Amino acid sequence: MTPPSSEACMARALQLARHGCYTTHPNPRVGCVVVNAGLIVGEGYHAYAGGPHAEVHALREAGDAAAGATVYVTLEPCSHHGRTPPCAQALIDAGVQRVVVAMGDPNPQVAGRGVAMLREAGIEVEVGCLAADAEALNVGFVKRMRDGVPFVRLKMAMSLDGRTAMASGESQWITGGSARTEVQRLRARSCAVMTGVDSVIFDNSRLTVRADQLGREDGEVIARRQPLRVVVDSRLRLPAAAACLREPGRTLVATVSSDEARRATLEQAGAEVLVLPEAAEGRVDLRALLAHLAAREQCNEVLLETGATLAGAMLDLEAIDEMQLFVAPTLLGGEARPLFALPGLECMAQQRPLQIDDIRAVGRDWRIVARPLPGKHRG
Amino acid sequence: MTPPSSEACMARALQLARHGCYTTHPNPRVGCVVVNAGLIVGEGYHAYAGGPHAEVHALREAGDAAAGATVYVTLEPCSHHGRTPPCAQALIDAGVQRVVVAMGDPNPQVAGRGVAMLREAGIEVEVGCLAADAEALNVGFVKRMRDGVPFVRLKMAMSLDGRTAMASGESQWITGGSARTEVQRLRARSCAVMTGVDSVIFDNSRLTVRADQLGREDGEVIARRQPLRVVVDSRLRLPAAAACLREPGRTLVATVSSDEARRATLEQAGAEVLVLPEAAEGRVDLRALLAHLAAREQCNEVLLETGATLAGAMLDLEAIDEMQLFVAPTLLGGEARPLFALPGLECMAQQRPLQIDDIRAVGRDWRIVARPLPGKHRG
Repeated sequence: MTPPSSEACMARALQLARHGCYTTHPNPRVGCVVVNAGLIVGEGYHAYAGGPHAEVHALREAGDAAAGATVYVTLEPCSHHGRTPPCAQALIDAGVQRVVVAMGDPNPQVAGRGVAMLREAGIEVEVGCLAADAEALNVGFVKRMRDGVPFVRLKMAMSLDGRTAMASGESQWITGGSARTEVQRLRARSCAVMTGVDSVIFDNSRLTVRADQLGREDGEVIARRQPLRVVVDSRLRLPAAAACLREPGRTLVATVSSDEARRATLEQAGAEVLVLPEAAEGRVDLRALLAHLAAREQCNEVLLETGATLAGAMLDLEAIDEMQLFVAPTLLGGEARPLFALPGLECMAQQRPLQIDDIRAVGRDWRIVARPLPGKHRG
Repeated sequence: MTPPSSEACMARALQLARHGCYTTHPNPRVGCVVVNAGLIVGEGYHAYAGGPHAEVHALREAGDAAAGATVYVTLEPCSHHGRTPPCAQALIDAGVQRVVVAMGDPNPQVAGRGVAMLREAGIEVEVGCLAADAEALNVGFVKRMRDGVPFVRLKMAMSLDGRTAMASGESQWITGGSARTEVQRLRARSCAVMTGVDSVIFDNSRLTVRADQLGREDGEVIARRQPLRVVVDSRLRLPAAAACLREPGRTLVATVSSDEARRATLEQAGAEVLVLPEAAEGRVDLRALLAHLAAREQCNEVLLETGATLAGAMLDLEAIDEMQLFVAPTLLGGEARPLFALPGLECMAQQRPLQIDDIRAVGRDWRIVARPLPGKHRG
């Protein structure tokens, strides 16, 4: 029998890692496969922060068969004592012969130490197998470690003529049930859900993950962790009676207001109020907010669910990494609300080019996944 | 050897018929296959009005082998003397045994006569094989015959946020070369290209088929026939210097104006002026225009290339049968021009639902083909 290729073993490790997609926050998703004499003898993935790392699960399953084995792991094994002992040491102790790593630790302050530790112990190490897939799996963790900001994914539900709501603000429901399930999953994989206060005021949306709307058997487990709700609210206009304040999980209100009475009211209603520096026109400095979410809240992926103004401001800051547009087969007309307010965009030379990565049907709707192409054609 | 199935033979006849896609106007596209003893002995298609019908070509190729053969033809053979003798008689004279027809003649005044003539001569006739494909091939001809109006296909080039131009009107070029080639082909298959006077004034577009932009070897032949240009121009504002008036082919200006001086000026510049009844607010009665195009100009397919106002008015009249939206991977912002002006559409219950039939990449752009779902959710 031909032994499986390195790529096949790593693909299996990536597949295992994806099991942690909804639960490892703020840790990265990691999978591990132990192969001895061409046979998979152990598999594991990281399930939740504080629990054993992927390597530990896989080595445990392999038992004595780990000695002399090749280990495939989707992220460089850790070399430090965190909530668990270092995995590099566990691999050394198990007597493995070779370790194949998809990508190094993206944290520049620790990158390479796990690999070095293994090599010092005489273990053969190879780095870079299916690296692009491994980065895609942890796009938020990688971005936070490298750039100090979360990966921001904008979700919008729109009509085919690019409208998100009627002029009155009415918008429920443009898209169908399948699209809403996908949005629930996007929320569940995110560390935070971010919106503008006007969206909360109009829709009174809860911004939560609902176990029964995930369409997954493990919905109850996933919904135990609610993503942090982040409301951009320069003037503290969030009503104390807002539905999101009564839901499990935390609500962070980002403001530039120094109104102590409003602050006390909101805190009493269950909100946490974060006063940030002011950007232009009395608005919250969104870059400062993103830096805060990365540094203090350990946010990897942030889901932005909002209207044209905040979406446009984030796009202008080049702070949107990906957009997922759910397009309903309907027209709402030229008076309805636009996707992006982009003031100052007046001629074709100033258009904002995108890269469309995927278009596919989601129930009766279509999902378009696109990325802004940064710094191009800016007027 | 297994003889080919009826469906396979008819599919070949349909394939042949498509060769006439750009040239048979105002006639339908028709293909024909003659099969004897399980072998195709003759093939033909209708190439241009006044030329031989598909059956004549195919019988000619079959020669003596037509005797006792089965003939597959995508449209009921004609029974009347037009510019050519009746095909039903030709089939009888050739001694064929059986005729399989995809669909009957859609003209209710002549439908069934061809079939009746064949049956009276003792020929076995079967109707309905791949009928849906045959109707799709001649969607415009069928609509003109059955409803007395052309099939109207709206083409628009838009950004991902549903914008067709900047607020200033600037729009060249939102989409790329591949999309423009597809638009050239849409023009080439249409009997007429219809637009509003404002589009002509702003873009000064020629509305012509350009041989070198069709991306086909037979581009020169196709471009010899220019689709009728139809400009909706209630108040005769079309400039006499408009580029479209200097191009080969005819330009019809549809108006409600009785300004004889303007009319004379435009006629001198090469336009034909059609005065139509007035609909609301001094506008051209678009239904009357469509009826005119069907009855007097024998228009099967009309390509509507226009801005939000005329597109919205046509949508409100339920006069758009299909829309082809070419979506560029770019954002133009909330101030840019909308796809459809739909005044009075104020709540979600009034939204205009569509059926999306196809989405696919066209170069760097995407083409969405959709149909309005008539009479649903109208407020």
